[in-house]
Amino acid sequence: MNQPSVSMNDTGLKNDLLIRACQGQPTPRTPVWMMRQAGRYLPEYQAVRAKADFLAMCRTPELATEVTLQPVDIIGVDAAIIFSDILVVPEAMGMKVTFHDGVGPVFDHPIDGPREIQALEPVVVEEKLGYVLEALEMTKRALDGRVPLIGFAGAPWTIAGYMVEGRSSKTFAKVKAMRYTRPDLLHQLLDRLSHVVSDFLLAQIDAGADVVQLFDSWAGMLTPDDFRVFSLPYLKKIVDRVSVTGVPIIVFARNAGHSFTELSQIGAQVLSVSWSEELAAAKAAVQGRVVLQGNLDPCALLGPIDSLRQEVIAVLDCMGHNPSHIFNLGHGILPNTPVDHARALIDIVKEESVRYHG
Amino acid sequence: MNQPSVSMNDTGLKNDLLIRACQGQPTPRTPVWMMRQAGRYLPEYQAVRAKADFLAMCRTPELATEVTLQPVDIIGVDAAIIFSDILVVPEAMGMKVTFHDGVGPVFDHPIDGPREIQALEPVVVEEKLGYVLEALEMTKRALDGRVPLIGFAGAPWTIAGYMVEGRSSKTFAKVKAMRYTRPDLLHQLLDRLSHVVSDFLLAQIDAGADVVQLFDSWAGMLTPDDFRVFSLPYLKKIVDRVSVTGVPIIVFARNAGHSFTELSQIGAQVLSVSWSEELAAAKAAVQGRVVLQGNLDPCALLGPIDSLRQEVIAVLDCMGHNPSHIFNLGHGILPNTPVDHARALIDIVKEESVRYHG
Repeated sequence: MNQPSVSMNDTGLKNDLLIRACQGQPTPRTPVWMMRQAGRYLPEYQAVRAKADFLAMCRTPELATEVTLQPVDIIGVDAAIIFSDILVVPEAMGMKVTFHDGVGPVFDHPIDGPREIQALEPVVVEEKLGYVLEALEMTKRALDGRVPLIGFAGAPWTIAGYMVEGRSSKTFAKVKAMRYTRPDLLHQLLDRLSHVVSDFLLAQIDAGADVVQLFDSWAGMLTPDDFRVFSLPYLKKIVDRVSVTGVPIIVFARNAGHSFTELSQIGAQVLSVSWSEELAAAKAAVQGRVVLQGNLDPCALLGPIDSLRQEVIAVLDCMGHNPSHIFNLGHGILPNTPVDHARALIDIVKEESVRYHG
Repeated sequence: MNQPSVSMNDTGLKNDLLIRACQGQPTPRTPVWMMRQAGRYLPEYQAVRAKADFLAMCRTPELATEVTLQPVDIIGVDAAIIFSDILVVPEAMGMKVTFHDGVGPVFDHPIDGPREIQALEPVVVEEKLGYVLEALEMTKRALDGRVPLIGFAGAPWTIAGYMVEGRSSKTFAKVKAMRYTRPDLLHQLLDRLSHVVSDFLLAQIDAGADVVQLFDSWAGMLTPDDFRVFSLPYLKKIVDRVSVTGVPIIVFARNAGHSFTELSQIGAQVLSVSWSEELAAAKAAVQGRVVLQGNLDPCALLGPIDSLRQEVIAVLDCMGHNPSHIFNLGHGILPNTPVDHARALIDIVKEESVRYHG
C-alpha cells in the first residue's frame, strides 16, 4: 500500500514517485530524499572520504558514483542526487579552489574587480566538467532505474558570493559592497554564471539527470529587494533555458521566503523551503502554482525517534490531503546525525504519508 | 527645522527624540542610532581596545563610558547605548567566558545537562553586574542629558544558545538537540535566564537607562513554531516585569519576521527589524501596535554616499508620513565601515527625514 509503482513506466524508473510529485501528479505516498544525503553522517561515506579528498571524490566518477548510491542502498531514499559541489563551476572557469577541513572552500585569487572577471575562462561543459557528466552516466547505469537521479548546480548569486568573498563568510560583505560600488560588474558576473550554469544543467540532463535542483544557498544574504534584482532574474534565465527539456526543476532559495510568490512564477516545478521558513506561509504564497519540497529541521534528527515522528507528522499535516509535496529536510543533513535516525526518518515518511494520499 | 527640541523637558534630556518616538509621539524628524555604534569601525574605539581586552573594557566603567560616548561625539547619533556584552549574564551565573580574536566568545564548560544548570549561581545583579550599573551611572553623568542612554541584555534563547553551544555556531545543533531530547531542561534554563535578565534590566533602569533593548540575536536559529515556544514566552515574561517602570522596551528578534504579529503583542513599545526582512511586511504585520526600528543593511555603508542616500530614502519612504519609526541598521555596523560613511548616514537621516514629519 505504501509502495511506489513497481512496474517499469515510460520514464524507465521502477520508483518514479519523485518525478510524478514534481509534475503535480497523484502518488500513493509522499516521496522523500535528503539534501546532503551522500554525506559525512554515513560511515560508508567516511570510508571513501578517508581515501580521497573532497575534490578528488567529485572528480573521480567511480567514487562519486559510489557515494551517490550509498543513501539509496543504506537509507532507502526515493532519489539519488549526484555527489558533486556547487564550486565546480567557478573552478571550471579557471578559479583554483581548495577545501580545508573546518574552513570549507577557499579560492586562491578571489574576484576583486573587472580584471578577474575578464580573466574567467569560457566553459565548454563537456571539456571542463566532463567528470560530473561521467559520474551521472555511471550512476544512472548503476541505479538501473531503481530511483530517479537528481543533477544540480549552484545559483549565480551564491556562486558569485563565493567567487568574490574567496571563502565562506558570515556577512558576504565583499560581494555586497560590490553590489553598491559596482552593481554593473556584479550583474556582468551573474550573467556569465547564468549561461554556464544553464549549459551545465542541460549537459547533466543529457547525461541522465531525471530532475535538476538549483541551490541558491546564500539567497538569504541579500535583502528582499536585492534578491529580486541580483538573484531572481538569473534563476529565471536558467529555468527558461532548462525548461525546454521538460525535466523538472527544483529551486532552493534558502531563506528567501519573502519572495515565495515571485519564486513560484519563474517556471520551476518545485520550490524547496528552508526549515527557518513557515511551510504554511509558503503554501499560501505559491497558491498551488508549484510543488513544495521540505522542510524538516535537520536538528530534529538529533532528537529521539518519537519526537522525530511528531515533527514529520506536523510537516505532513501542514501540507494536507493529496499534497503537492516532496518530503525533504529544510537544509543539509548534519554530519553528527545517527544513521538509524536518518533511516527512521525515511521509514516514518513512507509509513505516515500514505494516509494523506488517495 | 531638523533640530530636536533643544530645551530641557520633563525627561531632563536636551534631545529626547528617541524617547518620544518610542512612545509613538510626533517628532520633528526620525531619530537615528546604530547597533554596535561603539565599535571597531571607530579609530578612537580601537585606541581604547589596544590598551584593554574586550571583557576588561566591559568591566571597567571608565573605559565602557569612554567608548559609549564616542559615537555621540564623533558620529552625532541620537542615543548612546552602553558598551557591554550579552554574555555578561552567563558569566555572572558562574560560567567562565573568554573572548578570542576571530573566534568570538568561548565558554570553558558549556552546559551539557541538568548538572551544569543546577550549578549555575544565583545572581544578585548589584553584586555580580555592578560594573555595568556603574558604567551606566558614569555615562549618564557624562552625557549630561545630551541624548538618551540605552541599556540592554540578551534574550534568554540567545544566551542559552551560547551557554549550551559553548561558542558561536553555524547551526546551534547542540542546543537544538537539547530542544528535542530534553525540552524540559531547556525550558528550565530559559526560565532562570528570564528572571536574571529581568532583574538586570530593572537594575539598568535604576542606574539611569532611559530605554532598554532585548537582543534575541539568534531568534532565527529556531523554526517559526519553536520560536513561539522557546523564545517568545520568555521575551514576554521579561517585558511584563520591566514594563512597570514605564521605560520603553525595544525587542530585536533577529530573523524572526515570521512572528512580527505575535512580537507586536507582548507589550514592548518597539520592534527592531533585521535587514533580511521586509520593512513593509513588518509594518503590515504590526498594524500600528508598535514602533518599528531599522532596518538598513549595514553593507549599504560600504558603498558610495550617493547610493547610501538612496537606500536611506527607500527606508524612509517605506515608513511613510509621520512614521512610528526609529532609524537604525538591520544588524550591527561592520568593522570595515568608513567612519565618514557612518557620519554621512546619520547626517542623511537627520536631513532627509524632516520632510516625512509634521
